[in-house]
Amino acid sequence: MELLKRKIENEGRVLSNHVLKVDSFLNHQVDPELMVEIGKEFAQRFKNEGVTKVLTIESSGIAPGLITALNLSVPVIFARKRKSLTLVDGLITSTVHSFTKNETNEISISNQYIIPGDRVLIIDDFLANGQAALGLVDIVKKAEAEMIGIGIVIEKSFQEGANLLRNEGFRVESLARIESLENGRVTFLQEAEATIL
Amino acid sequence: MELLKRKIENEGRVLSNHVLKVDSFLNHQVDPELMVEIGKEFAQRFKNEGVTKVLTIESSGIAPGLITALNLSVPVIFARKRKSLTLVDGLITSTVHSFTKNETNEISISNQYIIPGDRVLIIDDFLANGQAALGLVDIVKKAEAEMIGIGIVIEKSFQEGANLLRNEGFRVESLARIESLENGRVTFLQEAEATIL
Repeated sequence: MELLKRKIENEGRVLSNHVLKVDSFLNHQVDPELMVEIGKEFAQRFKNEGVTKVLTIESSGIAPGLITALNLSVPVIFARKRKSLTLVDGLITSTVHSFTKNETNEISISNQYIIPGDRVLIIDDFLANGQAALGLVDIVKKAEAEMIGIGIVIEKSFQEGANLLRNEGFRVESLARIESLENGRVTFLQEAEATIL
Repeated sequence: MELLKRKIENEGRVLSNHVLKVDSFLNHQVDPELMVEIGKEFAQRFKNEGVTKVLTIESSGIAPGLITALNLSVPVIFARKRKSLTLVDGLITSTVHSFTKNETNEISISNQYIIPGDRVLIIDDFLANGQAALGLVDIVKKAEAEMIGIGIVIEKSFQEGANLLRNEGFRVESLARIESLENGRVTFLQEAEATIL
């Protein structure tokens, strides 16, 4: 998605060989117009799959997840990272380790909102080690719903998550695929390579 | 906002005299079409105020905040409840106590995204004791930006937050104002009363 790549080039900050900061438009300050385009693009790619629910995880997945759901005319559910006192019964839970934050969270959704028969599209902002996505996949399985695919705004292709999910047979659609953050520069996978990989 | 009130009547669950659960459409599963209407309504009410930034707080403020910002053609910033390892320098922070979760969080934003001269509209899902809104107001003040107003999806008018904020002189626009949750029923403030209060 060219618009997104230009935004990453212009506003992304490479903090290390593994960390790209995009908090001016994606995960702290959010550019609503960009979210509209991102949501349209995900919806376009999955429009023929009969998606009934979009599943994402708080907090940075909510903006792209919401607009994707809007364009698919389905609800979006965001998994929570800790238990809330007003949401205790009937939880489906999984565990997610965040390498960025160096902490392990329980993530959960209410078992009312993803049910057997649902066709679930997972949306998240970043794919790095794949832990968040795998936790969401685990929740979909526990809900006995069907996994349709995974939409990722920014995939760090040099980390293991993308291969891990594709090797499990999941359709992963990433709008920007980053080959490397070395030398303080963002290098995207070229389209031809991206098709082969 | 009638559409929202009907949704609360049909899907909200009164768990106690103080707790209304609306996680089927607002703060766990989210109804994207309803968010579009909510965002339009907030934008309509504040359209002549020269808003330059929408400020909200993770996680449940993000969906209404995003669509409001989209309709005002400005960015939205969501305050985070804990420090992230990739977001440490240049934070503006405040403290928020959540009575629902019985915990105190530090909330923070990067000082890059709200700056002197900004005209800030705060958006949040619920107004109860007003702690989250006051924390956000505190951040706007520390950023030396201008407070334009506060847009609330559901105001529990029988708790202290609404009066507290209005007594401080802030313009508070709430799309649904709840007078009482007693006897397991949602009673809305009548329009006439709402105008007087």
